[in-house]
Amino acid sequence: MDMNTLKIVAPVLPNLPWEDRPSGCAAPLWRYSKNPVIPRDLLPDSNSIFNSAVVPFKDGFAGVFRCDDTNRRMALHVGFSKDGIHWDIKTEVLRFTGADPEVAEWVYGYDPRVTLLDGKYWVSWCNGYHGPTIGLAWTEDFETFHQVENAFLPYNRNGVLFPRKIGGRYAMLSRPSDTGHTAFGDIFYSESPDMEFWGHHRHVMAPAAFEVSAWQCMKIGAGPIPIETSEGWLLLYHGVLRSCNGYVYSFGSALLDLDQPWKVLSRSGPYLLSPQTPYECMGDVPNVAFPCAALTDSATGRIAVYYGCADTVTGLAFGYIPEIVDWTKKHSIL
Amino acid sequence: MDMNTLKIVAPVLPNLPWEDRPSGCAAPLWRYSKNPVIPRDLLPDSNSIFNSAVVPFKDGFAGVFRCDDTNRRMALHVGFSKDGIHWDIKTEVLRFTGADPEVAEWVYGYDPRVTLLDGKYWVSWCNGYHGPTIGLAWTEDFETFHQVENAFLPYNRNGVLFPRKIGGRYAMLSRPSDTGHTAFGDIFYSESPDMEFWGHHRHVMAPAAFEVSAWQCMKIGAGPIPIETSEGWLLLYHGVLRSCNGYVYSFGSALLDLDQPWKVLSRSGPYLLSPQTPYECMGDVPNVAFPCAALTDSATGRIAVYYGCADTVTGLAFGYIPEIVDWTKKHSIL
Amino acid sequence: MDMNTLKIVAPVLPNLPWEDRPSGCAAPLWRYSKNPVIPRDLLPDSNSIFNSAVVPFKDGFAGVFRCDDTNRRMALHVGFSKDGIHWDIKTEVLRFTGADPEVAEWVYGYDPRVTLLDGKYWVSWCNGYHGPTIGLAWTEDFETFHQVENAFLPYNRNGVLFPRKIGGRYAMLSRPSDTGHTAFGDIFYSESPDMEFWGHHRHVMAPAAFEVSAWQCMKIGAGPIPIETSEGWLLLYHGVLRSCNGYVYSFGSALLDLDQPWKVLSRSGPYLLSPQTPYECMGDVPNVAFPCAALTDSATGRIAVYYGCADTVTGLAFGYIPEIVDWTKKHSIL
Amino acid sequence: MDMNTLKIVAPVLPNLPWEDRPSGCAAPLWRYSKNPVIPRDLLPDSNSIFNSAVVPFKDGFAGVFRCDDTNRRMALHVGFSKDGIHWDIKTEVLRFTGADPEVAEWVYGYDPRVTLLDGKYWVSWCNGYHGPTIGLAWTEDFETFHQVENAFLPYNRNGVLFPRKIGGRYAMLSRPSDTGHTAFGDIFYSESPDMEFWGHHRHVMAPAAFEVSAWQCMKIGAGPIPIETSEGWLLLYHGVLRSCNGYVYSFGSALLDLDQPWKVLSRSGPYLLSPQTPYECMGDVPNVAFPCAALTDSATGRIAVYYGCADTVTGLAFGYIPEIVDWTKKHSIL
Amino acid sequence: MDMNTLKIVAPVLPNLPWEDRPSGCAAPLWRYSKNPVIPRDLLPDSNSIFNSAVVPFKDGFAGVFRCDDTNRRMALHVGFSKDGIHWDIKTEVLRFTGADPEVAEWVYGYDPRVTLLDGKYWVSWCNGYHGPTIGLAWTEDFETFHQVENAFLPYNRNGVLFPRKIGGRYAMLSRPSDTGHTAFGDIFYSESPDMEFWGHHRHVMAPAAFEVSAWQCMKIGAGPIPIETSEGWLLLYHGVLRSCNGYVYSFGSALLDLDQPWKVLSRSGPYLLSPQTPYECMGDVPNVAFPCAALTDSATGRIAVYYGCADTVTGLAFGYIPEIVDWTKKHSIL
Amino acid sequence: MDMNTLKIVAPVLPNLPWEDRPSGCAAPLWRYSKNPVIPRDLLPDSNSIFNSAVVPFKDGFAGVFRCDDTNRRMALHVGFSKDGIHWDIKTEVLRFTGADPEVAEWVYGYDPRVTLLDGKYWVSWCNGYHGPTIGLAWTEDFETFHQVENAFLPYNRNGVLFPRKIGGRYAMLSRPSDTGHTAFGDIFYSESPDMEFWGHHRHVMAPAAFEVSAWQCMKIGAGPIPIETSEGWLLLYHGVLRSCNGYVYSFGSALLDLDQPWKVLSRSGPYLLSPQTPYECMGDVPNVAFPCAALTDSATGRIAVYYGCADTVTGLAFGYIPEIVDWTKKHSIL
Repeated sequence: MDMNTLKIVAPVLPNLPWEDRPSGCAAPLWRYSKNPVIPRDLLPDSNSIFNSAVVPFKDGFAGVFRCDDTNRRMALHVGFSKDGIHWDIKTEVLRFTGADPEVAEWVYGYDPRVTLLDGKYWVSWCNGYHGPTIGLAWTEDFETFHQVENAFLPYNRNGVLFPRKIGGRYAMLSRPSDTGHTAFGDIFYSESPDMEFWGHHRHVMAPAAFEVSAWQCMKIGAGPIPIETSEGWLLLYHGVLRSCNGYVYSFGSALLDLDQPWKVLSRSGPYLLSPQTPYECMGDVPNVAFPCAALTDSATGRIAVYYGCADTVTGLAFGYIPEIVDWTKKHSIL
Repeated sequence: MDMNTLKIVAPVLPNLPWEDRPSGCAAPLWRYSKNPVIPRDLLPDSNSIFNSAVVPFKDGFAGVFRCDDTNRRMALHVGFSKDGIHWDIKTEVLRFTGADPEVAEWVYGYDPRVTLLDGKYWVSWCNGYHGPTIGLAWTEDFETFHQVENAFLPYNRNGVLFPRKIGGRYAMLSRPSDTGHTAFGDIFYSESPDMEFWGHHRHVMAPAAFEVSAWQCMKIGAGPIPIETSEGWLLLYHGVLRSCNGYVYSFGSALLDLDQPWKVLSRSGPYLLSPQTPYECMGDVPNVAFPCAALTDSATGRIAVYYGCADTVTGLAFGYIPEIVDWTKKHSIL
Repeated sequence: MDMNTLKIVAPVLPNLPWEDRPSGCAAPLWRYSKNPVIPRDLLPDSNSIFNSAVVPFKDGFAGVFRCDDTNRRMALHVGFSKDGIHWDIKTEVLRFTGADPEVAEWVYGYDPRVTLLDGKYWVSWCNGYHGPTIGLAWTEDFETFHQVENAFLPYNRNGVLFPRKIGGRYAMLSRPSDTGHTAFGDIFYSESPDMEFWGHHRHVMAPAAFEVSAWQCMKIGAGPIPIETSEGWLLLYHGVLRSCNGYVYSFGSALLDLDQPWKVLSRSGPYLLSPQTPYECMGDVPNVAFPCAALTDSATGRIAVYYGCADTVTGLAFGYIPEIVDWTKKHSIL
Repeated sequence: MDMNTLKIVAPVLPNLPWEDRPSGCAAPLWRYSKNPVIPRDLLPDSNSIFNSAVVPFKDGFAGVFRCDDTNRRMALHVGFSKDGIHWDIKTEVLRFTGADPEVAEWVYGYDPRVTLLDGKYWVSWCNGYHGPTIGLAWTEDFETFHQVENAFLPYNRNGVLFPRKIGGRYAMLSRPSDTGHTAFGDIFYSESPDMEFWGHHRHVMAPAAFEVSAWQCMKIGAGPIPIETSEGWLLLYHGVLRSCNGYVYSFGSALLDLDQPWKVLSRSGPYLLSPQTPYECMGDVPNVAFPCAALTDSATGRIAVYYGCADTVTGLAFGYIPEIVDWTKKHSIL
Repeated sequence: MDMNTLKIVAPVLPNLPWEDRPSGCAAPLWRYSKNPVIPRDLLPDSNSIFNSAVVPFKDGFAGVFRCDDTNRRMALHVGFSKDGIHWDIKTEVLRFTGADPEVAEWVYGYDPRVTLLDGKYWVSWCNGYHGPTIGLAWTEDFETFHQVENAFLPYNRNGVLFPRKIGGRYAMLSRPSDTGHTAFGDIFYSESPDMEFWGHHRHVMAPAAFEVSAWQCMKIGAGPIPIETSEGWLLLYHGVLRSCNGYVYSFGSALLDLDQPWKVLSRSGPYLLSPQTPYECMGDVPNVAFPCAALTDSATGRIAVYYGCADTVTGLAFGYIPEIVDWTKKHSIL
Repeated sequence: MDMNTLKIVAPVLPNLPWEDRPSGCAAPLWRYSKNPVIPRDLLPDSNSIFNSAVVPFKDGFAGVFRCDDTNRRMALHVGFSKDGIHWDIKTEVLRFTGADPEVAEWVYGYDPRVTLLDGKYWVSWCNGYHGPTIGLAWTEDFETFHQVENAFLPYNRNGVLFPRKIGGRYAMLSRPSDTGHTAFGDIFYSESPDMEFWGHHRHVMAPAAFEVSAWQCMKIGAGPIPIETSEGWLLLYHGVLRSCNGYVYSFGSALLDLDQPWKVLSRSGPYLLSPQTPYECMGDVPNVAFPCAALTDSATGRIAVYYGCADTVTGLAFGYIPEIVDWTKKHSIL
């Protein structure tokens, strides 16, 4: 599949960060040679910066970053960048406004995603409210963030909005969880008429069988905002394998039906990227590659994926969407 | 508090099952002397009948019963009774109609609750859809049950509707769970404009501290449909203590704010009833007393509580609502 | 199916213990009204007598009994009976002879089975040899027991011989285990040319899906010696369900192919018997019904099943083999 | 051994509760035929009364009782009795006085022991201070109880004083534990010059090997105050076996060296008593027999053992000390 | 001990891979300076290549390699090499032929060993058949592999054949396991007259006591094919220590009796090699050094050990067998 | 705070190891650029050298070092150094003398601390006596070490003496534990009149709430000997966070009341140092930074902290005590 046959519904983004495929590399995704693109100590008191979300904004990029401080408290911070590589992250933590007092109290928040949707930038994140659930807020300027109700009951993580309404309703993927280091996890789909009440919950994907695709055999969760293509929604998602020495987070790709996204059209057996470099294998949580955002240039099909590395730093990886779509279909385990 | 000062919003129900308080008993709730009121083998192939829901219906009572068969498959059955004690339970399992095919497939269902709400009998139950969640359906005749969407994402149990809209919205209590014998559990409150989409989730109660009220220190969950009184919603709820020999399920009471039911006005430190009789202590799951329904006579303040015993049979217990309200306030741990 | 159409390959045994089906009972198996047939303290120092094996012997019956003493050490004892109900169990423990010194040392042994095979009474039991495995021995007189090699590597339990060679080889069912209270367990089939070396291992049955037959959803294991019928080998087997309060052991039935016994022809969804009486629900391990032996009268089709109750005492249950075969086929979950 | 040869260092106590050995009983200990001697609801708000300590006091008996209320909060209560069978337990909880404010705050307390020592009645109990540890207090009148420092760091349970100084120092047995349902437990010995500072810790006994004495193979702990005899300190102690359905608490006996009580002279392989009656097998924690006190008449050698049953009620058992000493030596596993 | 006194029963193998001991190194085994000798991505789609087996073949070497693909499916591949360092591994997976259809179905296979035995190259591996067990096959040309019956019932791993019959029978070491990340593991010995039926199981070694040799205190398993010497079978075996951060796999050596190999003559307390380099400490499973094969030159006593590193790549280590034999005896913990 | 306002009660120690703060570093503690200061293989047979204690001695320094050998047996060794950086560690293990034979037997010992106290060098360590507890010994010459009684009952770790009597008594911090990789842990304070009997146990600190300071949210334990300052005892202590991939050990600081050291005056929310370098993140136990000793120069306020890295090697970090005191107060979570 190439750019002539695959339609990508996304803006033209000529300034997305980019580095050509290294010679000899046949993989559909390759790492940025200067990874990690964001070091753990970019902020004066940051212990780690990872699992963060970026979008095109004005003539550059904006983002919501997970920055744990040296108390190892989880917090969100706003950042801006001209080139998507050098980031100016605010030292003060992001605080939301406007929520009902009962849910507005900040306990903790992490692993944000951001998408432009109906003219606003919507942020979803794992929000502490008597356990982890999915927080929601919107901004127009990355200065004031208007928090709305939590989408779901606890315990939930990895809530990821679709970038447009589907069938007239807002749509979100999420992974129901438990209160700890959850050892299970499927991806579900939910709908809302108003971003306030949610229902029509549908099961999307379970972990794969161990014999079929072991890197995703314990739990899975949606990664960046799904990318609309003529072949379906392209979803990058993480998968977890539990070895005798803990969890290993890799990520792969799937194509979801455009109108009924809980129907999976194809799903990659191989991972797109698994933790193999020192900055992915060594850090606060070794062996984690966890994507939360992707920038797409519909003109060239280029994609730049931001992913957390070892829960410590942020990495970048590059690819071409048509190639990834082809590869997903070719290596599908469905 | 007596019937002159406490207003109970419920029908007059002179035919509710009843037995006077035994002499010498000072407890706010006492067991029916002929317990278990429903034996395990009332149906030809039933292994157990428990955790079931009854409501006034026509000139008697109707109910939805959890009847596990001798495969120990969980199923729901409809039953009718003139006196609330002798039940005619249908041998065929209850099947719902009308749901979206994606959620209509029956996997398993258990622990139903039933309430009359806006002229229909609404059933909520723990419904198997890629894990346990809250199923919803309504009937007008206890013959045809119209299933609607599952209220929440998995994993959830003990979804209990309020018997009227609150603040213009349907309201439900539930206990988010995990995929197994969940070792945690708080009660949450959720709202819906339409029984289809749910939101505005609020935390109601966490388990109590071990030193304060140990029978409810591991997890709690709503029991029968809350009863509206002038002192607040009277909620009977179960609590679980984990000993070195497993879980013990008892139940107590709480009063919730009428308009903001997530605000707890009082909460009993003592249990109302804990497993102490052979039929509560011996059975498929020893040491379980688990209430799912209550009949109320607003004229006398009498209440008849149906509760599952040892996950095997069904018991009845009696009391006076004004006394229980008083007792709850007097022994509150808040 | 009746005695005209079902052929049972077993001796005529008019003196097997028996009690007619109680009126009103429709179940394929019913308990002896004087259960437990063997009390826990039949021996001066016995803590419990259960999970034991009996066979016709001379003009009565002989058996190998699991008798734990008041140290709660597990041991085997020989016993004799005229009527299968009143037993004379020897106070001294059974000791085997003739084994290689390396395996002859007695560590512990439990849950024996006995069958007449090629003119000898063969005993298999769970034998402690650096973990539980399957011990084997034979006797002709129930006085001297000749131990041979352990059949398998540890960790294994519930080794049950077939009462004749199949395809020219000895045949055994067993349940590979781990070192503790194993939370998994399938039944496997193995062959031996000589009772010394074993191979050709085949998988027979896994636990059933929770939604299909929950009483056998965690682990299963063969019970009494399989009974040869014209419809296949009738196997009674136990199944285990794990509740939040521990394991529950029930038992059901299956029909195995006569020539390839690893092929299951039918398998009961319902249990034949689950722990429901006080002597099954209360004792050293509550909620256990665990069959290890059955006496069969091929003339009448009667079967008397000996089963351990709560790991404390021994019970008897009765039925008709043709009815059980019919019932197994009718309620098969295959 | 008989009363002529065994010297028992204890008062003459002709009024200790007593019932002769039932005919046909050969066991060294037999149950009171009217057990449970103290029902669970002797107090208006008691959920259970068990694991309690009694001593001769004035012309009758006094005791410190574990009475959990219907919040299932653990508390201690004082009680008095003329005959050791009918008890008058105070409804108000026991409160200690005089301790340093830092340790005086009552959190929880359970499983008391009491002994007369140097003219005072000393109480030890499991005391909540940032986890369970051993609380200590003394009284002269069972009205005012003077609390001193906790003997040890958390986490500890079953602290049992010797009834006299040994080698010039106070002496205590205890069982170091963890914060939950501890799955291990040895008995240790400690000394103090002043009941304030403790040291010279010695290991006394570990759980027995599974193959040797399974009822005590997971953890053990001292029971009543040791009884001084010419054959050593007679210690009754509980042992725990973990089945697939939880913990089983039985108790046996040991003889400790008079001068170096950490040296075990003999230790019973069989249990003296294991949970076998309905009131021991059914209750808040099934299958528990847990002795905390014993009354001894040195004139006759009689002993009356108070033991908790199923963590719910209190039972009595009787025996003759010379017989128990003999039996312990005869069945010793050392 | 030197080459004059120690007899090694092995071919002369002058072309085995080799690198002299680094100066200053006193250890009996040293790493290849160019480790890892096989990188994780030698195959186009390989995620990792490790835990693999090599033997002399024709004028060079052949091997069976564990190559997990980027689905992280485990598979076996054949490879050839002239020098034992540069390997040509086939991209297609190894498929066996000739087995009974019931066991022939490929589910998964890993951790192979290969030995020349009676003129054929025998492969044993961990073979998925309703759980892990020991698969067996032979080849003469490393092109066609004839699978025979699985040697044992599940659950088993690390099945390692001896290179000749012992006492007239084939002989194998193995480590019975459970279904997951087994937390226990002893080495057992089994015999077979025909490679089809196995018996005469003997216990060889348990994990060492924590205080004696902690690196092998949780489980142990045989490594390469045992090497016959005049001092006994030299067995390299792995041992596992569980830290708070997971399992650590090291390896040591033992000498087994030539005729009764279940009798251990000496056993090293120190490890020969533990994970200390980045390629051993970082990868899919950190801190793993796992030997599966060794090449031996009987003329010089040289040994080249292939071992898996971090479950990701393959390393080489070198030594002299006489030195290792001496060292094993000198540092024996027996 | 500076040297003019903060009084440090410690010797003048101009020769303590030192390296100035790197330019651009704002942290209160910085690593030695030549870390690790002690490699794992400094001894011929050492597997690792870490968690060790040093003090000024004569014109240089002496220390007690945890040196695990290649059996991975834990042992203590004595060492000497002129500059605190280059160490001469004795190859023979440290053996204590003079203890009661019952406790003198060496089982294992690790994680020592050393302080000069009343003219003697006192060593405390985790000592194996039927489980881990706190061993105590003193020396005057680092040649003969006189062992006294274990301070506490098992199970205890991280026993740390104060360098002078407080309120006329010896004082120690410790962390009661369980028998394994304890998943809980508070710091307690105990007193002794004579180093023989201990009591007056007080709770000092519990782990912090996850939302407040996650690096210390699972367990905490005292590190080096507390340093007396005019602002209180400066305590460096480790804290543990459990991720899905195991424990992470960091360390921070607290100020304790001079006279009542169980009263915490301030406690750092941020860590002083967390594992971030390869030698802290990679090794036998990845992600461990564990301080056991500190050298202090009261003239300059300099502090040199020795800390174990990945349970493998020893690192050094430097700082100024007045800065650390200020920082602790400024970032206190109390």
